[in-house]
Amino acid sequence: MPSLGHVTPQTMHFAEPLPLQSGASLAGYDLVYETYGTLDAKRSNAVLVCHALNASHHVAGTYAGQDKSEGWWDNLVGPGKPLDTNRFFVIGINNLGSCFGSTGPMHPHPDPAKGGQPWGADFPVVTVEDWVDAQARLLDRLGIERLAAVIGGSLGAMQALSWTLRHPERVDHCIAVATAPNLSAQNIAFNEVARRAIITDPDFHGGHYYAHGVVPKRGLRVARMIGHITYLSDDSMEEKFGREMRAAEFGYTTQDIEFQIESYLRYQGDKFSEYFDANTYLLITRALDYFDPARAFGGDLSRAFAVARDKRFLLVSFTTDWRFSPERSREIVKALVDNRIEVSYAEIAAPHGHDAFLLEDPRYHGVLRAYFDRIAAERVTGVPGEGAA
Amino acid sequence: MPSLGHVTPQTMHFAEPLPLQSGASLAGYDLVYETYGTLDAKRSNAVLVCHALNASHHVAGTYAGQDKSEGWWDNLVGPGKPLDTNRFFVIGINNLGSCFGSTGPMHPHPDPAKGGQPWGADFPVVTVEDWVDAQARLLDRLGIERLAAVIGGSLGAMQALSWTLRHPERVDHCIAVATAPNLSAQNIAFNEVARRAIITDPDFHGGHYYAHGVVPKRGLRVARMIGHITYLSDDSMEEKFGREMRAAEFGYTTQDIEFQIESYLRYQGDKFSEYFDANTYLLITRALDYFDPARAFGGDLSRAFAVARDKRFLLVSFTTDWRFSPERSREIVKALVDNRIEVSYAEIAAPHGHDAFLLEDPRYHGVLRAYFDRIAAERVTGVPGEGAA
Repeated sequence: MPSLGHVTPQTMHFAEPLPLQSGASLAGYDLVYETYGTLDAKRSNAVLVCHALNASHHVAGTYAGQDKSEGWWDNLVGPGKPLDTNRFFVIGINNLGSCFGSTGPMHPHPDPAKGGQPWGADFPVVTVEDWVDAQARLLDRLGIERLAAVIGGSLGAMQALSWTLRHPERVDHCIAVATAPNLSAQNIAFNEVARRAIITDPDFHGGHYYAHGVVPKRGLRVARMIGHITYLSDDSMEEKFGREMRAAEFGYTTQDIEFQIESYLRYQGDKFSEYFDANTYLLITRALDYFDPARAFGGDLSRAFAVARDKRFLLVSFTTDWRFSPERSREIVKALVDNRIEVSYAEIAAPHGHDAFLLEDPRYHGVLRAYFDRIAAERVTGVPGEGAA
Repeated sequence: MPSLGHVTPQTMHFAEPLPLQSGASLAGYDLVYETYGTLDAKRSNAVLVCHALNASHHVAGTYAGQDKSEGWWDNLVGPGKPLDTNRFFVIGINNLGSCFGSTGPMHPHPDPAKGGQPWGADFPVVTVEDWVDAQARLLDRLGIERLAAVIGGSLGAMQALSWTLRHPERVDHCIAVATAPNLSAQNIAFNEVARRAIITDPDFHGGHYYAHGVVPKRGLRVARMIGHITYLSDDSMEEKFGREMRAAEFGYTTQDIEFQIESYLRYQGDKFSEYFDANTYLLITRALDYFDPARAFGGDLSRAFAVARDKRFLLVSFTTDWRFSPERSREIVKALVDNRIEVSYAEIAAPHGHDAFLLEDPRYHGVLRAYFDRIAAERVTGVPGEGAA
């Protein structure tokens, strides 16, 4: 499959303050984004891709410079791929609070009294809704009134759902993969353990570790190890590692590695702690915790989605995803059906757990391809659900 | 239900070295234990209760002194209870490496060159098999040749199973609750994250923190929080806490508590870090990792259990236990059936996850009561499976 080739991130500065859910506001900020494909004359073929915890605006393609990294959803987005950049104008935006370019805790605090020190723990708490509002402003500046579709997986899917609730007039289709209408107690619990590991790391310094020239790597490692376990299915871990030992015999040690799974997890933790910002980790897990569109409606998700009545939805879940199980996607499907909203739902039998949303499973990608084909066809005929194939 | 009332722990010293699975040996050690009920004249009514990660020899009853703590399986063991101390002589033994009395990392290193410093990280790595061998020695000293039954839950059940493999001639019945024939990759992964949290705590000092007058509490807290999540079912957490908030409105904070589940987990972590020894935590999680009776038989669990041919087994699992799921117990049942070994198996529909083995579920306790009634009846008639009711 051909790739997009080299892509280049862009930065847009916003001078007008962004009011946040917390009541605070962010005065002046940058958003980093990438676009692929061509915006058509009617500005009607835009698809926004929202990212999850660990990703960014770099959705597809590769960079030309030193950092040759491939976009995190490159298997999905590109010429001839399910989200076909020959037909759609695809936008990836890095969310506020991130450590990958958009304004976040690593950037200088705007208050001159702080003397150019990074925001650190003083960066305002941001929510899924805040991200969506910031994304909407970027679309304004790009001259895009209405999205053909908004798509995301996991936390990215929560943003996609939120788009249909906060800016329903600006979205035609919402594609929400491997997600949930809110976090369960167990989901919050895992987030909280990860946060405690970071916050109690002596190198965290209350979130102002930059000034100390250190990074709370111990905490980040543990946080990532916990997260990683929840991204994989029990079965896929079993198949990939099982009880495979590091050596032929046990070394009888509590501190060294005995099993390959330990080695793998430590590697993942180490790698993550080298590039991810601890304050960003706290902010993003909190955004996950807070997301709960039903809350304003006394817990009634159906009432929450009433505003999205003329949108169309595709929900996809994976059978072995125990972080956001199919049951959680079905709650959303039910809320949509309660509102007589058109929704397609695919429950994919995939062994890879939550991470499946990032992988190239033929059935999964087949569903997405068919759905985007339909969107593209509608745009040709102008008739919903009746385009040429 | 009447309790045992006050019980008193006893200590037995062993001067002969204990050879360990690792090849090392432990020269001289103490075992702390409790007994309830009366050993009959034939010394044939003894039941050994093996403890799991976080427990001890204090199985039932309460202490008379300052520490009034109730035994961890007091709802099961006592006069008239399912494991009836009016009929059985019940023994609880604290395992080697523990922090509750038997020789462990907190005790003085026997090498005079160490000047009376605690073992710390130098305490030898012990396995389920080592524990069982040490327990057998205590039974020797108590003059108990043969156990009417050995029982345990979780890691305790692994010891019960191991008894039938290492000392089959000394056991009639094995009762293994909420257990597995070995840890899965996911089980090991959770253990490893907990260990990393402890080991990378700057207060761990390579396991020799006693000399520094500190305790790696941060690591212990995180370890316990992770463990606790795996002990509870997703459903029971949801029912108990759900998304219940600490206050009426969110405080929009990453470092303070927003949800009740966070408060609960922090409390559990704090409490645990006050009394549990970090080196013991490492040792016990490793004993869990290593347990794998099939390993010496090329992974064939049926061959492993061939030696237990004339034992009788009761296996109990809980539907919502995702740490050691019913599937794992069924692996053991299959291996027993393959050997035409008599096995009863109860899969209890209980909402509480792995922790269910400690709780007083009427169906669960009913199964245990019936099984112990049967053992007691057999002992009266002398005919297996044919006792008076």
